[in-house]
Amino acid sequence: MKLAGVMLLMAAASLCCAQEPGDFQPAVTNVPDAQYPKVDSQSRAEIRVKAPDASKVKLNFWSGPKLDMEKQADGYWTVTTPSLAPGLHYYTVIIDGAEVSDPSSYAFFGGGRDASMIEIPEAGATYYTAQDVPHGQVREVWYHSQVTGTWRHALVYTPPGYDTQTRVRYPVLYLQHGAGEDETGWIRQGHANFILDNLIAAGSTKPMIVVMAYGYARRAGVTPPDLTGKPFGSPEMMRAMQEAFAVFEDDMTQALIPFIDANFRTKTDRDHRAMAGLSMGGAQTFQIAFDHLELFSYIGGFSGAGLVFGNQKLDPRTDFHGALADPAAFAKRVHLLWIGVGTDEPPMMKNGLERLHNSLADAKIEHVFYESPGTAHEWQTWRRDLKDFAPRLFQ
Amino acid sequence: MKLAGVMLLMAAASLCCAQEPGDFQPAVTNVPDAQYPKVDSQSRAEIRVKAPDASKVKLNFWSGPKLDMEKQADGYWTVTTPSLAPGLHYYTVIIDGAEVSDPSSYAFFGGGRDASMIEIPEAGATYYTAQDVPHGQVREVWYHSQVTGTWRHALVYTPPGYDTQTRVRYPVLYLQHGAGEDETGWIRQGHANFILDNLIAAGSTKPMIVVMAYGYARRAGVTPPDLTGKPFGSPEMMRAMQEAFAVFEDDMTQALIPFIDANFRTKTDRDHRAMAGLSMGGAQTFQIAFDHLELFSYIGGFSGAGLVFGNQKLDPRTDFHGALADPAAFAKRVHLLWIGVGTDEPPMMKNGLERLHNSLADAKIEHVFYESPGTAHEWQTWRRDLKDFAPRLFQ
Repeated sequence: MKLAGVMLLMAAASLCCAQEPGDFQPAVTNVPDAQYPKVDSQSRAEIRVKAPDASKVKLNFWSGPKLDMEKQADGYWTVTTPSLAPGLHYYTVIIDGAEVSDPSSYAFFGGGRDASMIEIPEAGATYYTAQDVPHGQVREVWYHSQVTGTWRHALVYTPPGYDTQTRVRYPVLYLQHGAGEDETGWIRQGHANFILDNLIAAGSTKPMIVVMAYGYARRAGVTPPDLTGKPFGSPEMMRAMQEAFAVFEDDMTQALIPFIDANFRTKTDRDHRAMAGLSMGGAQTFQIAFDHLELFSYIGGFSGAGLVFGNQKLDPRTDFHGALADPAAFAKRVHLLWIGVGTDEPPMMKNGLERLHNSLADAKIEHVFYESPGTAHEWQTWRRDLKDFAPRLFQ
Repeated sequence: MKLAGVMLLMAAASLCCAQEPGDFQPAVTNVPDAQYPKVDSQSRAEIRVKAPDASKVKLNFWSGPKLDMEKQADGYWTVTTPSLAPGLHYYTVIIDGAEVSDPSSYAFFGGGRDASMIEIPEAGATYYTAQDVPHGQVREVWYHSQVTGTWRHALVYTPPGYDTQTRVRYPVLYLQHGAGEDETGWIRQGHANFILDNLIAAGSTKPMIVVMAYGYARRAGVTPPDLTGKPFGSPEMMRAMQEAFAVFEDDMTQALIPFIDANFRTKTDRDHRAMAGLSMGGAQTFQIAFDHLELFSYIGGFSGAGLVFGNQKLDPRTDFHGALADPAAFAKRVHLLWIGVGTDEPPMMKNGLERLHNSLADAKIEHVFYESPGTAHEWQTWRRDLKDFAPRLFQ
């Protein structure tokens, strides 16, 4: 029976598979006791999926190779990829046209669904895994938002020592996910908690609280628009997206920040509040921080910022409420403006961020521009971004 | 491009599907904006999966109907179930022999994988959802275990007021998941945090800390046995399972409990420490609590306990280290012995727990036996169990 069968899982750790040639090992992102996917020291991945009656199975890396898989005699389909970039990669498997997750992988919320991911180790990189240092905690909190009229869920990282150093108040970084992700992204995918633990232990980074909110929000009492037949880029779609950004901005500034300041030992002045985000979260960061410079003095756009899409060009006199019109005043007011991109990101993103960087430089606006070598619009870029960004805060 | 595509998700809330006859509504377990699965007021579920090139698609409820799905002209496969029992049900979809999760559902860890689930509402039941009451927090903690030689992850519920009532110390319930699940089960599936929030707000339940650990553990430096060819029930398999239970017992008593008592404001005496678990977690509870009555005085087996399987019969003089030999002494020592089962559970479980109940009664051992009407070996049984069990603790 099912119960006995799953109890079998308990101890049956070594049941499968003869050793591969080479040094393929189960990926750390596999569910317990799953031998596949495997990764080797050349960063190749071997995927194996059971689909005995399928006609066609395709491996679909969202930012990587798309490969036909081969059916084996035992009804399993397999394929080995070329060497992959280091880091955590979203993928799905397409079985006779059905795009599904790999049952052997843990699920991670991205692309609007619980998708598969595989972790390809980066040689020598220990900064985003659990090391033998003091660990912080990650709290799930529920706060009521008068903006959405609902209870909302957020994750809050508290640094090592938070519970014992009860006289200490901490600065806060608000850190946002990308489109199609949610408030779990920075912990499940990004490992922001381990990144902070390790940076704090190294002495390079001020202990801080990190708040990870859910970047989607619907205004209480407002029916969402019917966008049937309205394509991306249409006025109706753009207006809907602007409203969505506005609702999140109101939720953050009117509900979340007051909740955090009331329930955690925070430093509440703008010099001790930072915001950053990846992709859509970076665009939200630029909008919210520049709308509310009375709340934020550190701003980070990780593969995302204002004015990145299309051929928009920065007008430093008028954009962002004119905050960039006077470089000297800006440098006093904003302690850090940070933008970053992976060198392997799609041209639109790379060109857009390089153009923004050049415009800021032309306008003599102090900022940091970080390029992550050899990574794409993916989590390894954003882990590296956080590693560069966090030590610069609150010093 | 993918980025624009997922940004489309952001605001595209109303794109799909004409209204069904009847009152089918998207399930609360769907990913954002997914219109399917749907549930109606008769507790029927409608599942819809895209598999345009598949020959055969089957809906597979793990504790419910297994139904062939029908291909529609648009390449989607659909089926509507009969009325389902209330609660949260694991399911997968079998596409040409590939057992996969439904992309429209959030993933929940059970059966050793990130599986789909659908929530069928129970009329009038508000005790396991977020109500307008004060909410506790759920903390992710990492503790180093000298037993496993690794960092281990657990979830800890702190009740409302924990952060502000800094002079108050709290009793602790250790609450374990079932086989094939993990430390997230009681929060993601069970909603234990909302159950406790609501019970505490009602005044029926003492504020307590709830610790949810990962019930699987491997001893440091010990190679797991090779169980190739050793079936369930074989001496090698039974020995491996016993060792797995022993390692978890050591991790809990030697690493986790000291960590919790050192890092949370707990009451550390046995009168203020309880343990309960579901299924395998209940069996672990009975083993650990009876091995360590110096640590625990409240014991709960939710669809799981010692001596449930096969035809084992309780010997009250010798079982559980003779703790049951003297009923009067037992009643003084153990403040609560609680066992429960759903009336629709498989015969082995139901008969086993009823037999245990009868044996305890025959031996004059004070205990509570709770039968959840009309539910199976599933989460609705265990949510009800917690609702009955928690108010009995620490009063």
